Amino acid sequence: MKSIAYYNGKTGAPEEMTIPMLDRVCYFGDGVYDATMAAGNTIFLLDEHVDRLYHSAGLIDIQINMTKEELKAILQDMISRTDNRYSFVYFQFTRATAPRSHACPKGFSPNLWITVTPKVFRDFSQPMKLTSMEDQRYLYCNVKTLNLLPNVLAAQKAEAEGCNETVFHRGETVTECSHSNCSILLPGGILKTHPNDCHILPGITKAHMFKACEKLGIPVDETAFTLEELRQADEVIITSSSNLCSFAETFEGKPVGGKAPALLKALQQTMIQEFLDFCGLKSL
Amino acid sequence: MKSIAYYNGKTGAPEEMTIPMLDRVCYFGDGVYDATMAAGNTIFLLDEHVDRLYHSAGLIDIQINMTKEELKAILQDMISRTDNRYSFVYFQFTRATAPRSHACPKGFSPNLWITVTPKVFRDFSQPMKLTSMEDQRYLYCNVKTLNLLPNVLAAQKAEAEGCNETVFHRGETVTECSHSNCSILLPGGILKTHPNDCHILPGITKAHMFKACEKLGIPVDETAFTLEELRQADEVIITSSSNLCSFAETFEGKPVGGKAPALLKALQQTMIQEFLDFCGLKSL
Repeated sequence: MKSIAYYNGKTGAPEEMTIPMLDRVCYFGDGVYDATMAAGNTIFLLDEHVDRLYHSAGLIDIQINMTKEELKAILQDMISRTDNRYSFVYFQFTRATAPRSHACPKGFSPNLWITVTPKVFRDFSQPMKLTSMEDQRYLYCNVKTLNLLPNVLAAQKAEAEGCNETVFHRGETVTECSHSNCSILLPGGILKTHPNDCHILPGITKAHMFKACEKLGIPVDETAFTLEELRQADEVIITSSSNLCSFAETFEGKPVGGKAPALLKALQQTMIQEFLDFCGLKSL
Repeated sequence: MKSIAYYNGKTGAPEEMTIPMLDRVCYFGDGVYDATMAAGNTIFLLDEHVDRLYHSAGLIDIQINMTKEELKAILQDMISRTDNRYSFVYFQFTRATAPRSHACPKGFSPNLWITVTPKVFRDFSQPMKLTSMEDQRYLYCNVKTLNLLPNVLAAQKAEAEGCNETVFHRGETVTECSHSNCSILLPGGILKTHPNDCHILPGITKAHMFKACEKLGIPVDETAFTLEELRQADEVIITSSSNLCSFAETFEGKPVGGKAPALLKALQQTMIQEFLDFCGLKSL
């Protein structure tokens, strides 16, 4: 089996599964999610992704009714039913299934959703094209919720313009991308990236990039940077759990980065190596 | 039958209906909705609510694949299958059912959802208690989307504090409530309310309140007001499609309004009369 879906204990092919019409996700986007890659049956950084999911749930007062260990066991069981070399493991809790009312009625429990689908990393040697969009999102961007409509609009803008990602900016300040974090390498080999606050998701891959930076002696400056700094940067780095570490060659149709290819490659290779080591692989 | 639900032509009891797990509402809240009250088979201000739904869809580039007349016919058919004195008629379009990807894959069409449930207006003579919350929502509040998590959090705050609604404010500026518009009556009998922009939903009931104001000679000032103006106002008025025109007696635990009861009552009665006339009723 290539893909499998799970909803509160029921499993099946994702395109055949159904869920109750009164799940609150259907009316309010009322839920939180997380996702990561897996190699075979090894789910990359599972502990950290599960920790972040429970943290997200806590931030919007969703009281998850199972332990992290129980969730991990279910995720492991799901992945063991597939036979992909690489998979995308996606999991979310929605608040409840209950008659529609903004305030959730009492006495209902969260719903667990999982999908496991085949996926490979994009080619790390292939640069991305980036466009931009004013960041008009809410100030809960640190919570990985299912209120992702602005992110959808940003991703659709990228696609319409033949780009891979959209850089969100609040005025002149770059925050992150539609579904990735955005960092820059500055002259002198410093990595600059938006601090973790309500404007961006605290990326797990970004945190692991910091570890790679430490290994390589690259200082990390968690200070927000401007669009102009991005345009002038040595390299523009796009990180996400689904694609680890990519880089950009154009921004708003103009060339960007490309001035520190060796450092960029070292960073990518350190991160790929961590993935390989974690998953017990010799090569991708 | 009391309640009925509809999804792309399938109908049933809301609590028994299911929808595809890959409807994009489940991952992105990717859809728009509208809702209104009905008396018997007469759906109040149906044309305006359908117009707003199509407008919301257009603003986030959801291309609805049926005419407004077709939608209205389906809604009328649904309500004719119930036998409630008053119903809440809720309808939404989600972008597509497709494999999860931020940018929607091509070649999929929107899904139509409807629920009709029994509901009565809250007692117009009963005041509301209001609490407050910093408005951290996105700048698409003029679009009636399914990204309503901050509204859920605000409604839950109200309930936790024994209140009926939460007033959102950006700094000192009042925007609206979790699922209602908020206006104030000032000394001299002027109605003040936030202008329609990206910070609030353009309320249909609010627009009809403006008509009632015109009839009653109440000037309307569409200028944002502050929390302090709300605290000092003659009356605080809460409007929504589901409850028409309510008023507040407390805000953040302190008495508010109550200084222009005659004008308030005239406003309420004008709005109730419009509802009765529209629905061909003599009394509620």
